[in-house]
Amino acid sequence: MTNINLVSEYKCFDGKLGFYSHLSTTCNGEMRFTVYQPPQATQKPVPVLYFLSGLTCTEDNFMIKAGAQQWAAKYGLMLVAPDTSPRNTDIVGENEQWDVGTGAGFYVDATEIPWRSHYQMYSYIIQELPTVINTNFPAQPNQTSIFGHSMGGHGALICAMRNPQLYKSVSAFAPITAPMQCSWGQKAFNLYLGNNQEKWQMYDASQLVQKVGYHSTILIDQGTADQFLTDQLLPNVFEQACTEVNQPLNLRYQPGYDHSYYFISTFIADHIRHHAKYLGLIE
Amino acid sequence: MTNINLVSEYKCFDGKLGFYSHLSTTCNGEMRFTVYQPPQATQKPVPVLYFLSGLTCTEDNFMIKAGAQQWAAKYGLMLVAPDTSPRNTDIVGENEQWDVGTGAGFYVDATEIPWRSHYQMYSYIIQELPTVINTNFPAQPNQTSIFGHSMGGHGALICAMRNPQLYKSVSAFAPITAPMQCSWGQKAFNLYLGNNQEKWQMYDASQLVQKVGYHSTILIDQGTADQFLTDQLLPNVFEQACTEVNQPLNLRYQPGYDHSYYFISTFIADHIRHHAKYLGLIE
Repeated sequence: MTNINLVSEYKCFDGKLGFYSHLSTTCNGEMRFTVYQPPQATQKPVPVLYFLSGLTCTEDNFMIKAGAQQWAAKYGLMLVAPDTSPRNTDIVGENEQWDVGTGAGFYVDATEIPWRSHYQMYSYIIQELPTVINTNFPAQPNQTSIFGHSMGGHGALICAMRNPQLYKSVSAFAPITAPMQCSWGQKAFNLYLGNNQEKWQMYDASQLVQKVGYHSTILIDQGTADQFLTDQLLPNVFEQACTEVNQPLNLRYQPGYDHSYYFISTFIADHIRHHAKYLGLIE
Repeated sequence: MTNINLVSEYKCFDGKLGFYSHLSTTCNGEMRFTVYQPPQATQKPVPVLYFLSGLTCTEDNFMIKAGAQQWAAKYGLMLVAPDTSPRNTDIVGENEQWDVGTGAGFYVDATEIPWRSHYQMYSYIIQELPTVINTNFPAQPNQTSIFGHSMGGHGALICAMRNPQLYKSVSAFAPITAPMQCSWGQKAFNLYLGNNQEKWQMYDASQLVQKVGYHSTILIDQGTADQFLTDQLLPNVFEQACTEVNQPLNLRYQPGYDHSYYFISTFIADHIRHHAKYLGLIE
């Protein structure tokens, strides 16, 4: 039994939103996450949808801003949103830059000093966190999906493609789809993984889709007014890679939308319906 | 023509969310507000629904947290959320306490030194802000309603009851309904209005409803787990006052809900439908 601490709790759309912390063995320190339990979870275990957030976010942005709870309550699925990195690790420089270190774990298992002692976000997301959730909440352990935003969209794509048996479906808002080809990804991968680009490929969605593909249609929404579209996100690279291997992809360019949670909130219902379908909650 | 400055703008639910500042003559300094223009506003003027926020809030909390834009877009009404006080006025002590001064204008016209030079929130809300909105946005000036939360619920109730010709409908989340009987109200009224309680009565919803009433049903949602329910909000006092004068009131106690935006977001759709009905947008 894993010990988790309830930090605070709120009733929301007839369900229960909780903020939690726990001592993570994977990340070797305290980690935080939020869980929204829909009203249906008081009666029986429910499917779980994980949301991975973007650079600078914590575990709370998604629950405060995305407006997802109403749809989770409607369809009867649990939402889980973890923090985006370990914090307060005493790694020198962890708080010095917004795009590496605190708030920027990039969902990889770091192999390089000094990051490797704590920055094991990939294993945390696919192994430890689900165990914590399945042990402590009324979750259906075999009914799980994943989505995310920006850096978290990258995280969702790589977690899903590398673990298709764990995740019934994947979607993303404005994901970093080709981190090996953008400065955010290159900087983070260099620091966390070293300069051997062989190791990077397993964390690059555009590489992975050509190697392993995915068993269901990938949904991506991308705003055309997103300031990071052409430099960092590169959905065209991912689209091309999907085309080459006939990977079903529903890439929707949304005119005029930017990178913010106002964009996410506009299309959150579509994404939750996408997952509810693959989780067997709706037709 | 009033000059307003666009601080930032976001597309949201096919409409436009803008953050604005302007030089207020009423408050004698810069004031800030947000406006959500639904997609219908590109075709024709639309009704306007004002939201007044609670203690410590700024103009942005409502637009970030309440999830109101989706319903404003659906029914075709504009949302306007002003800041809760003047800021940076150089009044000595304006930032020293969270329940008076900055973030705590209480929607009154201050008569006391030093506050009266800037703290004219009542006149700002009912006169200057609507003029700014009607001049700069595609608003139907005669189709206006108002609602709010906590201190802003108090503000909405007094603005509506004192100006029934301006507001077609009023509603509130966990409003301060009898400020003369709670410590928040007494403290603020003493500082802003002086100790002559005659002047307080025109800013107390439970007093006002007995004097002037209101022309349509007042909708109030109140969480039963709200930590401020019995000390500060006192909906029972307002209910009693309404009963005495046969004022139609729909006071809904919502079991287990607290004072947070998670509570507001749960019932925001009901409130917007309430106003959409009185604004002639739905049956």
